[in-house]
Amino acid sequence: MSDFRGLIVAVSGPSGVGKGTVLARVEELLEQANPGSVGHSISVTTRAPRGQEQDGVEYYFRTREQFEQMIKDDEIVEYDTYVDNYYGTPAEPLRKMVMKGQDVLFDITIEGSLALNRKFDVDTVTIFILPPSMEELEMRLRGRGTETEEKIQKRLTQAKEEIGRAGEFEYLVTNGDIDTAAREIVAIITAEKLKASKNIDTAKALL
Amino acid sequence: MSDFRGLIVAVSGPSGVGKGTVLARVEELLEQANPGSVGHSISVTTRAPRGQEQDGVEYYFRTREQFEQMIKDDEIVEYDTYVDNYYGTPAEPLRKMVMKGQDVLFDITIEGSLALNRKFDVDTVTIFILPPSMEELEMRLRGRGTETEEKIQKRLTQAKEEIGRAGEFEYLVTNGDIDTAAREIVAIITAEKLKASKNIDTAKALL
Repeated sequence: MSDFRGLIVAVSGPSGVGKGTVLARVEELLEQANPGSVGHSISVTTRAPRGQEQDGVEYYFRTREQFEQMIKDDEIVEYDTYVDNYYGTPAEPLRKMVMKGQDVLFDITIEGSLALNRKFDVDTVTIFILPPSMEELEMRLRGRGTETEEKIQKRLTQAKEEIGRAGEFEYLVTNGDIDTAAREIVAIITAEKLKASKNIDTAKALL
Repeated sequence: MSDFRGLIVAVSGPSGVGKGTVLARVEELLEQANPGSVGHSISVTTRAPRGQEQDGVEYYFRTREQFEQMIKDDEIVEYDTYVDNYYGTPAEPLRKMVMKGQDVLFDITIEGSLALNRKFDVDTVTIFILPPSMEELEMRLRGRGTETEEKIQKRLTQAKEEIGRAGEFEYLVTNGDIDTAAREIVAIITAEKLKASKNIDTAKALL
């Protein structure tokens, strides 16, 4: 499988659905099968480094001017602002990881997934994670025990809006059981790399 | 997974590449995971039954007039003639197996794969199996020990022509190792069923 380019795996889904846990398990399975095969995207930010933070480790630290230039150069795939600072996903390191054959997993908003897909097209697969039922999603949100009733209701309303957009994704995976969902995502990654559109050079090389 | 429709898995590849062996292993893996999940297509023929052969078991036995009517009614997906008799794949039993959630595996010619894909569209996945190298394919053909040098050369020429058409398939799988190739095909089947285009009702049912 090391002949293949890596894949950008953009995973979205409602709050509480368990994206983070499923993706951690996916990473474990991929690394077991092929150590070093998972790359990690490091965000670019305009906020100042804190304590021991190093450029290119926790974040790429850039000035506001540099960040805005990167946006103009189409070198930021998607970004957001938080407390007056920019946070974004830089394109160039992603491109390099894919060319090296590394898969990069993203737990990301719907807009973030769609932006990755627009920018990296055939090298990206978009997956939406569904809860087994709305009742189960509500239970998981309440299970955290940290949120007010009002906040839970707000999250459920938002979850329904997001699930209504599931059709904008290429694949839907239901997280009833973490291991099953993770194995389904690994199957999607395997299958995507076997597509003739990505793989035709293997056939040409035989002739 | 039992909520899903079945999938028609059309597998082609050059003579000697090991399609039959790989598909037998795929069937084993699918049946282990989900007993009864693999359906078998029975051909229609105009030849007379022999010995204990029963209609609907070894073949569907039909008259030439019936067969030609089935062609006109678009109820034969693909057919061929051999010793003055028709042999074809009937559409209706396939449709029923898919609706019941059964997967149906075909070891079939390139034209047969493409015909299945045209007829059953979203319910079909087409896979072309490649040898790891032409030298390995030649060794496998010679390993049979039953064919003349002339026939082996003819098969190799034909293999190259067929590999040149690999791009007409959706997925390419290299058969270097039977178990790896079989697991890749199982991953393709899993992923195909998770496509949002086939699966959007799961999301709608939540809302």
